[in-house]
Amino acid sequence: MQRSAQLKVGRRKPAVGQIGLGIMGGAFAKHLLAARFPVVGYDPAVAQVRAFSRMGGHAASSCAEVASRAKIIITSLPSPAAMEEAFFGKDGIAEGVRPGTIVIEASTMTLELKEGIRRRLVRRGVRLLDCPISGTGAQAAAKDIAVYASGDRRAFNRCRAVFDGFARSTYYCGEFGIGSKLKFVANLLVTIHNLSAAEAMVVGEKAGIDLKLLYRVIGDGAGSSRMFQVRGPMMVAGRYEPPQMKSEIYQKDIDIIRAFVRRLKCPTPLFDAGVPFYTAALRQGWGRHDTAAIHAVLRKRARLRGPKRGGQTG
Amino acid sequence: MQRSAQLKVGRRKPAVGQIGLGIMGGAFAKHLLAARFPVVGYDPAVAQVRAFSRMGGHAASSCAEVASRAKIIITSLPSPAAMEEAFFGKDGIAEGVRPGTIVIEASTMTLELKEGIRRRLVRRGVRLLDCPISGTGAQAAAKDIAVYASGDRRAFNRCRAVFDGFARSTYYCGEFGIGSKLKFVANLLVTIHNLSAAEAMVVGEKAGIDLKLLYRVIGDGAGSSRMFQVRGPMMVAGRYEPPQMKSEIYQKDIDIIRAFVRRLKCPTPLFDAGVPFYTAALRQGWGRHDTAAIHAVLRKRARLRGPKRGGQTG
Repeated sequence: MQRSAQLKVGRRKPAVGQIGLGIMGGAFAKHLLAARFPVVGYDPAVAQVRAFSRMGGHAASSCAEVASRAKIIITSLPSPAAMEEAFFGKDGIAEGVRPGTIVIEASTMTLELKEGIRRRLVRRGVRLLDCPISGTGAQAAAKDIAVYASGDRRAFNRCRAVFDGFARSTYYCGEFGIGSKLKFVANLLVTIHNLSAAEAMVVGEKAGIDLKLLYRVIGDGAGSSRMFQVRGPMMVAGRYEPPQMKSEIYQKDIDIIRAFVRRLKCPTPLFDAGVPFYTAALRQGWGRHDTAAIHAVLRKRARLRGPKRGGQTG
Repeated sequence: MQRSAQLKVGRRKPAVGQIGLGIMGGAFAKHLLAARFPVVGYDPAVAQVRAFSRMGGHAASSCAEVASRAKIIITSLPSPAAMEEAFFGKDGIAEGVRPGTIVIEASTMTLELKEGIRRRLVRRGVRLLDCPISGTGAQAAAKDIAVYASGDRRAFNRCRAVFDGFARSTYYCGEFGIGSKLKFVANLLVTIHNLSAAEAMVVGEKAGIDLKLLYRVIGDGAGSSRMFQVRGPMMVAGRYEPPQMKSEIYQKDIDIIRAFVRRLKCPTPLFDAGVPFYTAALRQGWGRHDTAAIHAVLRKRARLRGPKRGGQTG
């Protein structure tokens, strides 16, 4: 009996704190609960907390309370302001956190911001891991995301089971910040390839090619990209909803990449040529649509008008 | 006995003419011979003809002779001048061709050139199909190419077995010229994505990321493209040989795409931003290297010097 009880204790998983219970954070919590981690969560939005409680999560009333109840904490936050508030605001993480705690920071933010938080936490004996997520909200819901993890290796190793609890795959990338840098490079390519897909579609439409044929033939060959495959069907249909990534939210990522490559003094001819089209998309009212709406911006510039699309006229 | 002989006649495959026995045409002939088509071939280069004869091909002494011995002819030619010569030069196809012949034109040329040839052949009762090839020389050798076929549908149907004899897959794309247009759109994307891969590598190197890690992590995610996957390893190694596509040869494709999109009056912001880097690659002496050498052009512009690459310094 005693032995069995000990085994049970040995098997018990550590409590995980989840701060931010939105599309991403809420999905992480769901998978961690399914993997039998006790999860303590907080979000300022009441509806999110309620959904979290229904899944079996333990709702906390503040970030400080989460930090006092879990020694591994995941943060998934929408803005720099929310991040400052969650870590160092009134009743923030710093108020309740215990030495030895590890924070898995999963947001996409500038490295300067993350590095500043890391340093302030070190003084309290807390280690911050830089762990941006590659994948959409839909992918997070299906546990189909990749984590680009970086920072203290031992801290990372201690969190292995937690990563496996909410992600399809986790890459340990090296010293603090490499994870974010890889995310920026990946999104630089996403920014370019989304527009190049639109460019191909508009050239095709102007040339009188049926866009469904174009999508099928080109998606299978040397000109293909993940973005062409994923966003192409929205462009063929000329409908940019439901959004997988809203144009207005993606603007934050573009601003971060731009600041990053400027600081590196690195030439980025294609990224630079593409950015004005994303700005134009916002100006033309596509902010709440998927970033595939860049296709509408390019069609307008090509003087292709009206609801007719190549895929329908062919 | 008689019945069996008839069956044998019924099974006999029609002779196929192959004009141009270089990397592409030579590979087509090889596969067609393996598929038991009698192949009559011609090339001005003696070495190519010799190799073709060794494979079991019937060498002809001119394009006219090929045309007089085969009613389905494939042309695979390196330049507009070679094309004019092969079709309408002294002892060209037009000299020997019989009415009812079908020519599968597999080169990548301007549509104006192909359309002109098509019209001149119609008068002789000969149908030209526009059938550019998607795939490299290595892919042709492995019978791993796709054909973007367009033109008269009945003529296309009569050539089905021939296409199956030398290509992995054949798309019938519609009226004459759609095949070429699709090829131009595909290569527009190839032009952009090859440079975007280089852009990502150079940003990564400037940021101190190990390029092997970058290749592995990003090639698996939303930022990936076929070009990133295929050319990435050459960029990581900083070696752009052996060439899959030489920079100096690819310049022809760039010129054709440029003329094509100009005529359409179509905005192509990323293609336009990319072209100067291909020009610079030729100027900097990379003409005989793979187009992945655009990476060296961008590294130079980023003031990354010397033989050290991120993949080796990490």
